[in-house]
Amino acid sequence: MNSIAFWGGNFLLLVEIAGTAAFAMSGVLEAARKRLDPVGVCVVGFLAAFGGGTLRDLLLDHRPFFWVRHVDVLWGVFALCILAMFFMKARHFAVTERAMQWPDAIGLGLFTASGVHQALLINMPGIVALLMGVITGVFGGVLRDLVCNEIPTAFKDHRPYALCAFAGGWIYLGLLQSGQADWLALGLCVLGTASLRLVSLWRDWRLPAWQA
Amino acid sequence: MNSIAFWGGNFLLLVEIAGTAAFAMSGVLEAARKRLDPVGVCVVGFLAAFGGGTLRDLLLDHRPFFWVRHVDVLWGVFALCILAMFFMKARHFAVTERAMQWPDAIGLGLFTASGVHQALLINMPGIVALLMGVITGVFGGVLRDLVCNEIPTAFKDHRPYALCAFAGGWIYLGLLQSGQADWLALGLCVLGTASLRLVSLWRDWRLPAWQA
Amino acid sequence: MNSIAFWGGNFLLLVEIAGTAAFAMSGVLEAARKRLDPVGVCVVGFLAAFGGGTLRDLLLDHRPFFWVRHVDVLWGVFALCILAMFFMKARHFAVTERAMQWPDAIGLGLFTASGVHQALLINMPGIVALLMGVITGVFGGVLRDLVCNEIPTAFKDHRPYALCAFAGGWIYLGLLQSGQADWLALGLCVLGTASLRLVSLWRDWRLPAWQA
Repeated sequence: MNSIAFWGGNFLLLVEIAGTAAFAMSGVLEAARKRLDPVGVCVVGFLAAFGGGTLRDLLLDHRPFFWVRHVDVLWGVFALCILAMFFMKARHFAVTERAMQWPDAIGLGLFTASGVHQALLINMPGIVALLMGVITGVFGGVLRDLVCNEIPTAFKDHRPYALCAFAGGWIYLGLLQSGQADWLALGLCVLGTASLRLVSLWRDWRLPAWQA
Repeated sequence: MNSIAFWGGNFLLLVEIAGTAAFAMSGVLEAARKRLDPVGVCVVGFLAAFGGGTLRDLLLDHRPFFWVRHVDVLWGVFALCILAMFFMKARHFAVTERAMQWPDAIGLGLFTASGVHQALLINMPGIVALLMGVITGVFGGVLRDLVCNEIPTAFKDHRPYALCAFAGGWIYLGLLQSGQADWLALGLCVLGTASLRLVSLWRDWRLPAWQA
Repeated sequence: MNSIAFWGGNFLLLVEIAGTAAFAMSGVLEAARKRLDPVGVCVVGFLAAFGGGTLRDLLLDHRPFFWVRHVDVLWGVFALCILAMFFMKARHFAVTERAMQWPDAIGLGLFTASGVHQALLINMPGIVALLMGVITGVFGGVLRDLVCNEIPTAFKDHRPYALCAFAGGWIYLGLLQSGQADWLALGLCVLGTASLRLVSLWRDWRLPAWQA
């Protein structure tokens, strides 16, 4: 476990910052489309960026939160929201959204891995660690959509998103189980989740609809 | 307190499993009606099943959660959601809903009793224990409706639901106060809440509307 | 820190009660407009009154909650909701809303100050204390609106509300930083937030809309 702990100190930090920015941007875009005011744009940006990780930490009773330990990231997301409001026009939205697909997929991978990782650190059972991975990756977007008064996209657009996180979590657990090093399991979880998401967008995979 | 603790170890487990299944089913049905994708169906099923108890445990700072101690129940709800998606057709929905009224009422009674019970175990004042009972019984359904972008049914359909839980909580507290054994108070709370709910459905009782 | 702690014991109590009543009333009014049933009116009243402070305490891992320490306030809000249902007619709504502007502004100030205060008591960094102030002041209303299936007013009406709390939090931190006494910083934070809110209503200040 020691090597996980060390690893966490340095790399996880970078990883969470990158994912956080992409997630914040998704919040800013949705808030803009819903014509929220500047306060709403910032709040939705914050929720999308920090909601998943904060919910995970609440459930795992883990303190201090990521954004309390690294207040610079709070300032960063704040600056991102303000800058977006000044410089983005409506015609940029679709372009930005496409440009965000890559960092968003990587963010999904990173958040999922960090969720599984945190849960394993305190000896949660495997399926709970999986759930924590999915929650960390997906619930930022869920909170973003709920505040904007929408059924969360992740639950109704019939595209694999939470499922990629789920599969990525299995990669993590499987590798760890088969005796691989922590950093390898974590890295392949990030890679696997992100690639699955990107491939599913590229091939336009759909989840089956309820047969009702 | 010892007898409560022992009692809790065995019977509460069974009790929470039965209620959990009925609540999960209510989530699956609502998600299906809203045409969510398979991920959404599972998430709403989980929220309906575990939301109330998890919120109670968050508020009471009680860990580990029910679903962390009994991961089998997680697998069970997961299986329930998947099976429902394979085997349920639209024409089954209304039938299932009617069939669910009984286990749902029993689930309401069980969850309410477990909420009051947990709060009393850590010496919360009576009214807080009442609130915890109502939250445990009702907020799974509230979270289910919120995610599906509806005003929670429990707050707008003018039928007694939370009120039955409230009354059942009073039964629990009253019996305990008058010196009855814990198991008797708990049992009659479950029975009282469930019967109230069933009678109110049968007699079609309505809450008064605001006189505005 | 000792003087803060002492101060908190007496004055904060009164302060939180006054703000709580105004916030509960805002919940009751919104629930009535949405034609919720009596259970819904009470729940939305409770959420508006206690939601912000409870969310803050959850995030700061602070127990027992305000409403557990002071169960009288629970009974008080409960009585307020019941009385409103008996005595308020639709024609009173607009009047009540106007009459509520003052206590609501004061409530915003008080809640903001108590949020900043609580966070500083456990040595949170400045920006986190600011956030906690804003969350305490604003998220009761946010939860109220979410349960009523609305995008939160605080995020879309282009009027300064969260911003007043934000500014008031800066007053608190600034005064404390420049070596002023705790009670002065706290008092001026309340006053500053409330006056800003009242002036902004009176002068009809608007936040700029997104230039998209």
